[in-house]
Amino acid sequence: MDVKGPKIKDYIRKFKVEPGKKVQLKKVDSGWVQNDELKKMSEGAAQELLEKLLDRDRAALTKAQELLAASHQHGILIVLQGMDTAGKDGTIRHVMSGVNPQGCDVHGFKVPSSEDHAHDFLWRYSKVLPERGMIGIFNRSYYEDVLVVRVHPERMEVLPEKIGPDAKGFWQGRYKDINAFEKHLSRNGTLILKFFLHISKDEQKKRLLARLDNKEKYWKFSTADLAERQYWDQYTKAYEEMLSATSTDYAPWFIVPADYKWMARTFVASVITSAISGLDLSYPKVSDEQVKQLMAAKKTLEAE
Amino acid sequence: MDVKGPKIKDYIRKFKVEPGKKVQLKKVDSGWVQNDELKKMSEGAAQELLEKLLDRDRAALTKAQELLAASHQHGILIVLQGMDTAGKDGTIRHVMSGVNPQGCDVHGFKVPSSEDHAHDFLWRYSKVLPERGMIGIFNRSYYEDVLVVRVHPERMEVLPEKIGPDAKGFWQGRYKDINAFEKHLSRNGTLILKFFLHISKDEQKKRLLARLDNKEKYWKFSTADLAERQYWDQYTKAYEEMLSATSTDYAPWFIVPADYKWMARTFVASVITSAISGLDLSYPKVSDEQVKQLMAAKKTLEAE
Repeated sequence: MDVKGPKIKDYIRKFKVEPGKKVQLKKVDSGWVQNDELKKMSEGAAQELLEKLLDRDRAALTKAQELLAASHQHGILIVLQGMDTAGKDGTIRHVMSGVNPQGCDVHGFKVPSSEDHAHDFLWRYSKVLPERGMIGIFNRSYYEDVLVVRVHPERMEVLPEKIGPDAKGFWQGRYKDINAFEKHLSRNGTLILKFFLHISKDEQKKRLLARLDNKEKYWKFSTADLAERQYWDQYTKAYEEMLSATSTDYAPWFIVPADYKWMARTFVASVITSAISGLDLSYPKVSDEQVKQLMAAKKTLEAE
Repeated sequence: MDVKGPKIKDYIRKFKVEPGKKVQLKKVDSGWVQNDELKKMSEGAAQELLEKLLDRDRAALTKAQELLAASHQHGILIVLQGMDTAGKDGTIRHVMSGVNPQGCDVHGFKVPSSEDHAHDFLWRYSKVLPERGMIGIFNRSYYEDVLVVRVHPERMEVLPEKIGPDAKGFWQGRYKDINAFEKHLSRNGTLILKFFLHISKDEQKKRLLARLDNKEKYWKFSTADLAERQYWDQYTKAYEEMLSATSTDYAPWFIVPADYKWMARTFVASVITSAISGLDLSYPKVSDEQVKQLMAAKKTLEAE
């Protein structure tokens, strides 16, 4: 099954949100797989096949990261968003395992502290942005500040009334702030890739029930997770508006079909690898003068 | 070849610096390997064998890290020190690849900034200590503040004369500050493991020459690396004094025989895994009341 080659470009394009395009999530197939043959296979066989592809992508990503670090010109910021159980943690674990941990920095963001809330909403994220040569992964991100607080207004920081969420154009303002922030990062050398892991409501039900079938995983489960499911439609609406407003040429969103975990992981690994190779990086040049110095150093060392 | 079992405890003990013991590095065999059979093998065969062992250790470490994150009680701080080319980067890459990148945080420390120098010498390290559930790795550390600045006094921050490096007991004071800092971390749940990757001066020569034989790696090489080699004896002395003064029950130093890279990596992986399993962690308990709530949630979900 050919995934690399021209096909990969096609399917990356297929799920990239075109800037300005109005997103309707129900029109995007969360159960899509790259090749229909996979659907005909048993689940086990399909997983096995995709795991092999993922191995190859992961190896390519490991190489790409080495070059990224060596050239020390660009940083990569990867944003992962998605409903509960969409597979954010698993994607990070499967895609990034194997990449040199020294070149990869993962940040999860918990409930904001009062210090966070005393600052603008981008503050706590900007403190942990990836430096040149690094891949930084945000497991959830500043996008929560136009998602969870939209569905649960009581969780938002307190703002002066005139500029708060009831002011005209408040959410549009936030989208603009995010776009400007990302433009600034992009202009200064950060490559930004954003993935929305898209699962269906049915698939979430299956995954929640599967967790509830395994006694050993009870500790992972909080009934609050289930309560959030009630807000599925509100979240969908917030996601759609956000995806429509914040996918740009310099920081595109990808809607990743994620009902099949292996498909999602392969997709994410491919996009990242393909984007890094698109940067056309090269190992640092060594000048003739430097070579001369190195050869002199070699002589000294050999003569020791 | 049996590495696990009783033997591992023995060889961990063999290279642990007993608190208060005066270290003489020339008395520790940097070319030691766990099994003499390895010495008789061809280099390729020995590497292959040790890589298999490392695979096993790495798998054990991956599992140990999962439990560490789930139990969320302890953080792990791993300090790596060693002369140039001792293999710090390679050890991190080989030992930690495969561990969930979300649970592992690597920090390298470059030349201190003027902001760093305007604070006490532990300040910049304490900002990036691992939180509970995480493995934090310091690739070089606050130990540089009793090593490189001892060999190169001009690189030290400016301190008031009365309390600076010429004051009586200055270096002993730094060791005490480090021990107190680590005691504090340990008392608050951080497990600390410190590895000095021990190579011979001859092995460093070989490695430097090997780098100079590979044109593609010239960019990695700075003649400054070679210049540092002149200070081998001064560094050795600084290391010996530091190792003697700062190996404690709560934050022991291991002198890792590192002339054979695979030996060093297997050693480090084993010590970390063995130390985590010594914490006797368990997955979080779920109370009867919580189980009841989860079962009620399950019913609601099934009825949807």
